[in-house]
Amino acid sequence: MKIIKPKLHYDNMTGVLSGEAIGEKIARIKDMAGFYADENSRKRFDQDVLVYRVQYYSPVPEGTEGGLFFGNTTVFPGKVGDEYFMTKGHYHAIGNRGEYYWCIEGSGLLLMMDQDNHTWAEEMLPGSLHYMPAYVAHRSINVRKEPLVFGACWPSDAGHEYGLILEKGFGLRVKEIKGAMTLVKY
Amino acid sequence: MKIIKPKLHYDNMTGVLSGEAIGEKIARIKDMAGFYADENSRKRFDQDVLVYRVQYYSPVPEGTEGGLFFGNTTVFPGKVGDEYFMTKGHYHAIGNRGEYYWCIEGSGLLLMMDQDNHTWAEEMLPGSLHYMPAYVAHRSINVRKEPLVFGACWPSDAGHEYGLILEKGFGLRVKEIKGAMTLVKY
Repeated sequence: MKIIKPKLHYDNMTGVLSGEAIGEKIARIKDMAGFYADENSRKRFDQDVLVYRVQYYSPVPEGTEGGLFFGNTTVFPGKVGDEYFMTKGHYHAIGNRGEYYWCIEGSGLLLMMDQDNHTWAEEMLPGSLHYMPAYVAHRSINVRKEPLVFGACWPSDAGHEYGLILEKGFGLRVKEIKGAMTLVKY
Repeated sequence: MKIIKPKLHYDNMTGVLSGEAIGEKIARIKDMAGFYADENSRKRFDQDVLVYRVQYYSPVPEGTEGGLFFGNTTVFPGKVGDEYFMTKGHYHAIGNRGEYYWCIEGSGLLLMMDQDNHTWAEEMLPGSLHYMPAYVAHRSINVRKEPLVFGACWPSDAGHEYGLILEKGFGLRVKEIKGAMTLVKY
């Protein structure tokens, strides 16, 4: 009986995934049209600058009921105008699917918004664990000068719904105003 | 707008969970009747000795569709006769639910068994990531003298089915024979 060597690796200290079939999604400035308040600043940016990167393992096809995906996200430091780099944010296409984030490096905010457009912000810092409940949109924001890195686990049939966020926004924007992180209502 | 302090903490280096509503399941020698080959050795053991402990966060009631639980397991070092300390092992009651384990400390084996009683073993070591697919039972075994610690994430409606394991076993036992870890067929 042969013992199988692990085919997948997750570095607990850095969040880096390696091994078989690791996927990657990258969001650059050019992919973020419509998400920042200051679209002119976004257009003036080098369009290839990385805003965030998601590394993930998907052992089953997207949409499979009962399966799970495992990943990590790096939100790079930066601002578009005075608004910090952030993820697009999404609801799950199957609304009752939950998700975990656990922060590994850096510091930021996790914005959550329910279906009634009630928005709140949780602090992310190394060791914070966050549960995204059913029907709650989530967006992460890097408010520092170092990368924000967090792990994630979510159902393989959750899906992503970005359109609603583009349409109605996220309730709050996170900006640097006079050198201080500030939450601003839309 | 107040920023909410994280209510939950997951120590990336040790796997320890802390904060609100963390549950705990403990398995002692007395809880393991029928799982080890050598039931006489098990009976002679101090019945209160810890075999393993699961710390977990359950943001929704057990059985909720779409939710996720997050936990960590410590399998303590030890043997019952020549058989290493291990978890009971389980299928999920809803068979198509998957699960992740990621090893944080220590070293061990992850036994997996499909519904045709085909059994295999993967090495667990710090940084190994393991996906338990649909309809596959899983058991973890500490083959060293230090605790084996791993994180886990699983659907809140997965449930646990232990009876089948008690009935048909797990295909392989992991024993220390002449000082060496050895896999033995049932």
